[in-house]
Amino acid sequence: MARIVKKFGGTSVANIERIRNVARRVKAAVDEGHQVTVVVSAMAGTTDQLVGFTREAAPFHDAREYDTVVAAGEQITACLLAITLQDMGVPARSWLGWQIPIRTNGVHGSARIESIDTTEIEKRLEQGQVAVVAGFQGLGPDNRITTLGRGGSDTSAVALAAALKADRCDIYTDVDGVYTTDPRIVPAARKLDKVTYEEMLEMASLGAKVLQTRSVEMAMNHRVRVQVLSSLENKPGTLVVDEDEIVEQQIVSGIAYSRNEAKVTLVGVADKPGIAGDIFTPLAEANINVDMIVQNVSADGLRTDLTFTVPVNDLDRAVKVIEENRERFPFERVATDKNVVKVSVIGVGMRSHAGVAATMFQALANNGINILVISTSEIKISVLIDAKYTELAVRALHTAYGLDAA
Amino acid sequence: MARIVKKFGGTSVANIERIRNVARRVKAAVDEGHQVTVVVSAMAGTTDQLVGFTREAAPFHDAREYDTVVAAGEQITACLLAITLQDMGVPARSWLGWQIPIRTNGVHGSARIESIDTTEIEKRLEQGQVAVVAGFQGLGPDNRITTLGRGGSDTSAVALAAALKADRCDIYTDVDGVYTTDPRIVPAARKLDKVTYEEMLEMASLGAKVLQTRSVEMAMNHRVRVQVLSSLENKPGTLVVDEDEIVEQQIVSGIAYSRNEAKVTLVGVADKPGIAGDIFTPLAEANINVDMIVQNVSADGLRTDLTFTVPVNDLDRAVKVIEENRERFPFERVATDKNVVKVSVIGVGMRSHAGVAATMFQALANNGINILVISTSEIKISVLIDAKYTELAVRALHTAYGLDAA
Repeated sequence: MARIVKKFGGTSVANIERIRNVARRVKAAVDEGHQVTVVVSAMAGTTDQLVGFTREAAPFHDAREYDTVVAAGEQITACLLAITLQDMGVPARSWLGWQIPIRTNGVHGSARIESIDTTEIEKRLEQGQVAVVAGFQGLGPDNRITTLGRGGSDTSAVALAAALKADRCDIYTDVDGVYTTDPRIVPAARKLDKVTYEEMLEMASLGAKVLQTRSVEMAMNHRVRVQVLSSLENKPGTLVVDEDEIVEQQIVSGIAYSRNEAKVTLVGVADKPGIAGDIFTPLAEANINVDMIVQNVSADGLRTDLTFTVPVNDLDRAVKVIEENRERFPFERVATDKNVVKVSVIGVGMRSHAGVAATMFQALANNGINILVISTSEIKISVLIDAKYTELAVRALHTAYGLDAA
Repeated sequence: MARIVKKFGGTSVANIERIRNVARRVKAAVDEGHQVTVVVSAMAGTTDQLVGFTREAAPFHDAREYDTVVAAGEQITACLLAITLQDMGVPARSWLGWQIPIRTNGVHGSARIESIDTTEIEKRLEQGQVAVVAGFQGLGPDNRITTLGRGGSDTSAVALAAALKADRCDIYTDVDGVYTTDPRIVPAARKLDKVTYEEMLEMASLGAKVLQTRSVEMAMNHRVRVQVLSSLENKPGTLVVDEDEIVEQQIVSGIAYSRNEAKVTLVGVADKPGIAGDIFTPLAEANINVDMIVQNVSADGLRTDLTFTVPVNDLDRAVKVIEENRERFPFERVATDKNVVKVSVIGVGMRSHAGVAATMFQALANNGINILVISTSEIKISVLIDAKYTELAVRALHTAYGLDAA
């Protein structure tokens, strides 16, 4: 007997037939003797429709009203799943955020969970009742419904798993697990049986969008064992776990890439102390996330080139901010490039192994790929390269680190 | 300055454009200096869609889950109206049943309101904020959402008006008031400026479906002045008030008719004491509402004919119940007739005036209309007649009681 939280997204509950599929999976777990809590999103399309209504009512609107409108989507699905489970003979009831309650702070639209009272749910779990929880929602300090922002149902599920001290949190998605890299680029990519929280975090933030970053952070902080698995097939997925749980750790677990990058180069910036702060402070104030930064060695000690990356959607805004602040940090011109991609090798094993970076640079050089910018963290090496080399680079690195399936 | 509750039904809030119309009417009242509480139904079609989902999930389902699903409809509309009002510069916020709270008993699907805590709403009304309340819903003793059953939003509005000690409760509908009779049958029908609760109750229960019976009962019990008026035109409607408020009371206020009747005759029933109880007890147990009853005088003192009416939708069930209980009250045969209509003259004035019934019977006789069954109450005389005479009878009575517009 285990205590399990299962989360199903909008496409898994898009209509009653799919809700029935979900109910069958839940019933199977109940029949195996497990205590099951299910977290559901809104039926696919519902949230968009509700958001559309609020926009039509007023382009700028009260986030508190918005939250109560969109939370209706998960409210409906939770009850429909409870009804379907009951119809299959499985004791079940729905729980809305305010009923549990899942208490959040008052930041409507992207609230953070502060506490979950699991007393009543635990009592019923022990009596064999399935708890069907409306994801994405909580109760703010003003006694009004809050929502948790994008991917909020993943966060709901992990937070509930933590509060319930669940043995596992299963996140059902349209992929069957986490791969060593994108199988559409590298057919030899392998599904990982286990991956660490830290690696998953790097992969999520790099655009391998299986799990929402916030939910992985929360899982890591509360040591919740998360399984990513397919809602379509009935087979084990990838476990996201603590490093200790992985006996034989690979040096590199996966190769990720992100097309969501744009390169900005300030040509001929004055090479003086404090200049970097002058440049990046206004960007930070504009909420633009600067990622990789490289500053060329100045030949004459007077002027240099400064290159960095920003999310491609923020590029125009970034250039505008820079032009507006020209007086603070004089430069000759701004050059931008959207035709770039960030490729990263990720693995907690690289902490204790030398030569990981050298392997990367060698593999890219062997394929004639020029590195534009490099950045590293403890468990990740990222390079910015010309976008046209994306597939070539990912395949070369996948092979170089011995990740290809036998 | 008055304190007013306004209720808008599903067609009045069917889309954002109509919600904007509602908001304009609310704003007009606010601009006049009134304290306004608005009660809204779900957008037309939404409730049917949600009910459809629950039926598709399981034909027989947990009423508690059903309630939480359908309550989402009013939840959405309340917030959209609040957003729209704010966009017009009118301070407003939405209130769900559980937030106020509107406490009900635990009869999910047709709960009754037990108490309303208006503390917070009154505080905000006095600050000039409009309260937009989701109709049809409350909070049960189990901390779960309840719904009030058919026409529940009318009941929500009247209950709020009572709790808030409102000066008036405006119910917006697709008609512009209460008429002396159906204007489709009698073009000379007049809109009544005022009508008493008792008369309105008789009219509502007779199928003049302007207001839900329950909401009129509640208005009467709490002396809430209700106005029925058009959501399309901007003119006064009909006030439903206490008898004392009507200075010059007509003897007859209106002529109502109901096609929702079926006649049942038990031919050759044993004429012995207690037989009526034997017949009507099983019908009552089957929840079939018997209305008009007439028993013929028995010629031989042994056998008689018993005639009564039931709602036409219950006719088949009623016959089945009678056949099943044949042993308890032997009879020769059952005759049924759906081609009947009940026509009623209604007026509190008839309490103190003689000859009202005579006028009715004379008017019908003059038009060659045969009366099948008669029943009376203090303020109503009803006759069952052949359905083909409906229009003729209604017109004749409307003229006979001097109700035709000059």
